[in-house]
Amino acid sequence: MKFKIEALDPQSKARAGEVTTDHGVIETPIFMPVGTMGTVKGVHQRELKEEINPDIILGNTYHLYLRPKTDVLEAAGGLHKFMNWDRPILTDSGGYQVYSLSGRRKIKEEGVKFKSHIDGSYHFFSPENVMEIQRKIGADIIMAFDECTPYPCDYNYAKRSMHMTHRWLNRCINHLEKVPYRYDYAQTFFPIVQGSTYTDLRKQSAEYIANAGAEGNAIGGLSVGEPAEEMYAMTDVVCSILPEDKPRYLMGVGTPINILENIALGVDMFDCVMPTRNARNGMLFTSEGHINIKNKKWENDFSPVDPAGITWVDTEYSKAYLRHLFVSNEFLGKQIATIHNLGFYLWLVREARKHIIAGDFREWKDKMVKQMDNRL
Amino acid sequence: MKFKIEALDPQSKARAGEVTTDHGVIETPIFMPVGTMGTVKGVHQRELKEEINPDIILGNTYHLYLRPKTDVLEAAGGLHKFMNWDRPILTDSGGYQVYSLSGRRKIKEEGVKFKSHIDGSYHFFSPENVMEIQRKIGADIIMAFDECTPYPCDYNYAKRSMHMTHRWLNRCINHLEKVPYRYDYAQTFFPIVQGSTYTDLRKQSAEYIANAGAEGNAIGGLSVGEPAEEMYAMTDVVCSILPEDKPRYLMGVGTPINILENIALGVDMFDCVMPTRNARNGMLFTSEGHINIKNKKWENDFSPVDPAGITWVDTEYSKAYLRHLFVSNEFLGKQIATIHNLGFYLWLVREARKHIIAGDFREWKDKMVKQMDNRL
Repeated sequence: MKFKIEALDPQSKARAGEVTTDHGVIETPIFMPVGTMGTVKGVHQRELKEEINPDIILGNTYHLYLRPKTDVLEAAGGLHKFMNWDRPILTDSGGYQVYSLSGRRKIKEEGVKFKSHIDGSYHFFSPENVMEIQRKIGADIIMAFDECTPYPCDYNYAKRSMHMTHRWLNRCINHLEKVPYRYDYAQTFFPIVQGSTYTDLRKQSAEYIANAGAEGNAIGGLSVGEPAEEMYAMTDVVCSILPEDKPRYLMGVGTPINILENIALGVDMFDCVMPTRNARNGMLFTSEGHINIKNKKWENDFSPVDPAGITWVDTEYSKAYLRHLFVSNEFLGKQIATIHNLGFYLWLVREARKHIIAGDFREWKDKMVKQMDNRL
Repeated sequence: MKFKIEALDPQSKARAGEVTTDHGVIETPIFMPVGTMGTVKGVHQRELKEEINPDIILGNTYHLYLRPKTDVLEAAGGLHKFMNWDRPILTDSGGYQVYSLSGRRKIKEEGVKFKSHIDGSYHFFSPENVMEIQRKIGADIIMAFDECTPYPCDYNYAKRSMHMTHRWLNRCINHLEKVPYRYDYAQTFFPIVQGSTYTDLRKQSAEYIANAGAEGNAIGGLSVGEPAEEMYAMTDVVCSILPEDKPRYLMGVGTPINILENIALGVDMFDCVMPTRNARNGMLFTSEGHINIKNKKWENDFSPVDPAGITWVDTEYSKAYLRHLFVSNEFLGKQIATIHNLGFYLWLVREARKHIIAGDFREWKDKMVKQMDNRL
């Protein structure tokens, strides 16, 4: 994997870059649509590629491990072939999902024992076997196995957990050093900074992660319920320590506003279920603000879903029609809203990139942040 | 509306024809995908048009009347504009849905009082107001308001019901004669033959309907649980009486085999929820037989969904991937299966048409009927 910085914004810490993988180039800043089970819910791969056009998508190790299971993915020749997606894929490590299983998992130094949410069967994730699972899934970018702490988190717990995440990082790296590439392309490894919302822990963790010398680095444990200001403060601290010549990935973030603010702090990569999950609930993001399409006010509004939208659904369907689909619980509504929202998120990061290159990102960002806060 | 017969099969009563409407030409025999609520579930209009490519689709008056409601459709300028579909639309009259509401409706000479399945509110359908609703929906083909009898049906009930359906037919015609076209295109009216599975009643009803002199005629009250042989016997009797120079529409039918057998008896138009509903349950129709994609046997089958399929989904996705989507309850699975099945149904009627024109329909039909009965 190679990373090249193309432009630095003079008024912020924003960067425009280019990550080169064996499955193609990722222009940064980038938003990665979440394809939990090897599918971005309700979107054909062809639509994803041709209409939404992200350079990279994300898969969830925990979910793919349970279904279709690692051996099926291996027999298929990896997730790319299984789902028919030829661009880069990043997989998370299952750390966040395991954290979400609160009450159904036990975290120990050795690893995490957990109960499947599907059938209650017991499973065990360790830094070593999670690296193996991700290798077999065939992700272009493999994430370290970490513990994602909740918010708020007791200082001592956050500190102990961070140190365990660091020890787990060493075990991940040791394991990956021993094994060759699983397929005929490179698989890159990103370690993850933890430390909850404590500045001293975040600094310590960022330094530890920076020293690992990986090809890219991630910031985890944010977007778990903390106020946006705390998130930005932590991102700022961590970005000032992580190497400048490596891409920075802020995991699980966020709203369109969160994304722009974090780009301004030096983040290059994002993922979040928000555009897809909110779409399925009838919430549309637009550059003018957000829309609850189920509202009665759209019942007789035959104007396009989004006259300024970038995907074909925005002008093919009307607000009244989309509202009807949601009110009638017709799945086509969720399909339309999903394509719209992902199209919007991708448009947003591409515009951000253009403005970074043009040198006027800060001004544009401040204007957009105000606009997007509206409820239409 | 114009109807032109292009070819008659020498070995059966099958016909290839062309129905011309103000929204375009319908090549017959045709299968009409069901778009109950102004959407073929899980399929974008663009996919429907470009990939599945039916000449006409069907909407359900009962459902559209309740949601989005007639006044919204009227404000939109009709269902075509509301859903963005510029080819012909046929609407049923609600007769079948009302029949399905057993226990929640009261049928009287004046009309049917029924309780909405959505909110329990009371509504009334009469021949006159159902014509008005369909006019406002803007269907190219409007269906008579009829009573669909159950199977089995007591002879006396079937006879009384048939006569009421005939009286209702007169009221439909009287109403339509008084009103101009609602939009800037012609709306054609089809009466419906009833008579349950009684040959004498079917004959009597077919004669009554033939005398109405409509531009097309329909056969209702079949595909409600009767054995296929009874269905074919009734279709045969009715088709021998209905005028040859008008299209014949067999409502709610059926399996691919049912469709071919009824084409051989002289039917031109079909609709059925089977390809779409079964798709959502993981059942795929193919020319070699049907597939339950949820079966374990497909878990590691990375071959295309249908190597001989006609839509892009057939070769874009593998059986193993499609099975994974169904097992994981991912909606993309239903989307893929729906496009596949509708693509197959449309292929089937188009092939039938080609073989009728080529003069070898009977032979091809007999071969297909055997093949399609397999379980793969």
